[in-house]
Amino acid sequence: MVNWFWRKGAKGARVDAPKLRPRSEDAALSTKVDLAELAPHRDQFLAQAAYVQLVIFEGLSANVAAAPDLAAKERLTRAAAIALEKHHAIVAEITRTGAVAAEAMQAHGAAIQFFQRATRGDTWAESLVTSHITSGILDDFFVRVAGGLPDDLERRVRAIYANGSHEALVSEQLRVYIEQQPTQAAHLAMWGRRLVGDTILVARSALASPPSSANDEARIEPVFTELIAAHTRRMDALGLTA
Amino acid sequence: MVNWFWRKGAKGARVDAPKLRPRSEDAALSTKVDLAELAPHRDQFLAQAAYVQLVIFEGLSANVAAAPDLAAKERLTRAAAIALEKHHAIVAEITRTGAVAAEAMQAHGAAIQFFQRATRGDTWAESLVTSHITSGILDDFFVRVAGGLPDDLERRVRAIYANGSHEALVSEQLRVYIEQQPTQAAHLAMWGRRLVGDTILVARSALASPPSSANDEARIEPVFTELIAAHTRRMDALGLTA
Repeated sequence: MVNWFWRKGAKGARVDAPKLRPRSEDAALSTKVDLAELAPHRDQFLAQAAYVQLVIFEGLSANVAAAPDLAAKERLTRAAAIALEKHHAIVAEITRTGAVAAEAMQAHGAAIQFFQRATRGDTWAESLVTSHITSGILDDFFVRVAGGLPDDLERRVRAIYANGSHEALVSEQLRVYIEQQPTQAAHLAMWGRRLVGDTILVARSALASPPSSANDEARIEPVFTELIAAHTRRMDALGLTA
Repeated sequence: MVNWFWRKGAKGARVDAPKLRPRSEDAALSTKVDLAELAPHRDQFLAQAAYVQLVIFEGLSANVAAAPDLAAKERLTRAAAIALEKHHAIVAEITRTGAVAAEAMQAHGAAIQFFQRATRGDTWAESLVTSHITSGILDDFFVRVAGGLPDDLERRVRAIYANGSHEALVSEQLRVYIEQQPTQAAHLAMWGRRLVGDTILVARSALASPPSSANDEARIEPVFTELIAAHTRRMDALGLTA
């Protein structure tokens, strides 16, 4: 399936989200392009990557506060710490360029603020799925785009993302929850599918410029298809249908 | 001033809070005692210190999420990181004893859970005052009580608390806020006074056993008086009357 790439977000009008053109007939003929070729300028990359980690941290710390017991809380604090360390490491890279992190994030943040509102869950389980699914896709995305940064910065950025992942910590919490509340599985699967559209849109807004031709679209599509394939594996691991 | 030590918490009936006796006539005759003499068993100390840092982290991360702009958010993430590091360092000490942190915190956590509910602010500024005032008093408190732990553990615990403080980060945020919203000062001063009772009560519940005689009370009082003097300096630094 993988039609999420083409799907508009589920919540009304949006600002800053790139407009998607209909699937081009010649998609199959285009050459696959690495996302790195569409990497934005270093400043935009760092600002958006830092802001996304801040949003992920906020989500995980809300997951900590709402956790049903201290064992779950304790494990989720580890996940929150990993996101916070990544955020601070990327902020250090912004500072290194001479910019002020808050100003940089503000300048490149409209799509991310929309994304945060659009993906907020109403329950602990929904919020945990949001943390897991959105950070999974977006970390994958920023690591791929990092290939277009200057070499030394690329190396440091890859090291930041390689330094720790909370994926196992969060997915284990969710797997246990779904095992205990099997009647919630269908709802959470739907919520997971609902998140992908908004997550892919915020990722696209973090590229150098929105694709402007059907040919551009066709060249990028396989990369997003790979991000979504990884997402599908994450959902499968939870026992949820993507 | 300094009657907070004797004041009952502001919110209705409480569980687990030690009963306070009226001020003894012979208070002035008693020798000052160091809080260390009332240190609880290592397991109780570590469980309660870890849980308190978790509560402080939860408060600070809620402050991050509710911050009015990215500059404030960014500075508060530093404060949250410091509390989270302390929490994880204390949890590592619990693990080292062979105990499971979540179980230990659960066993010693009733008064802390009450404290968290009782001190929750309704606005960003109230919540920020809660983070600042309660962590200021409780970090002071646990450092003093650490004197009663076995030497090697005491040394490590002191190092954990010495490793970083978010006090300056949070107070600076508050000072700026109060400068910009001077009409809020009186309300926040009242909120700050309101917090002290509940904070001192949770500290007392973390001692080896509630003081059982008027003489015990009199011996402990000067130590709490010092904690409250430090609190008063913190309030003064914000331009608030303690």
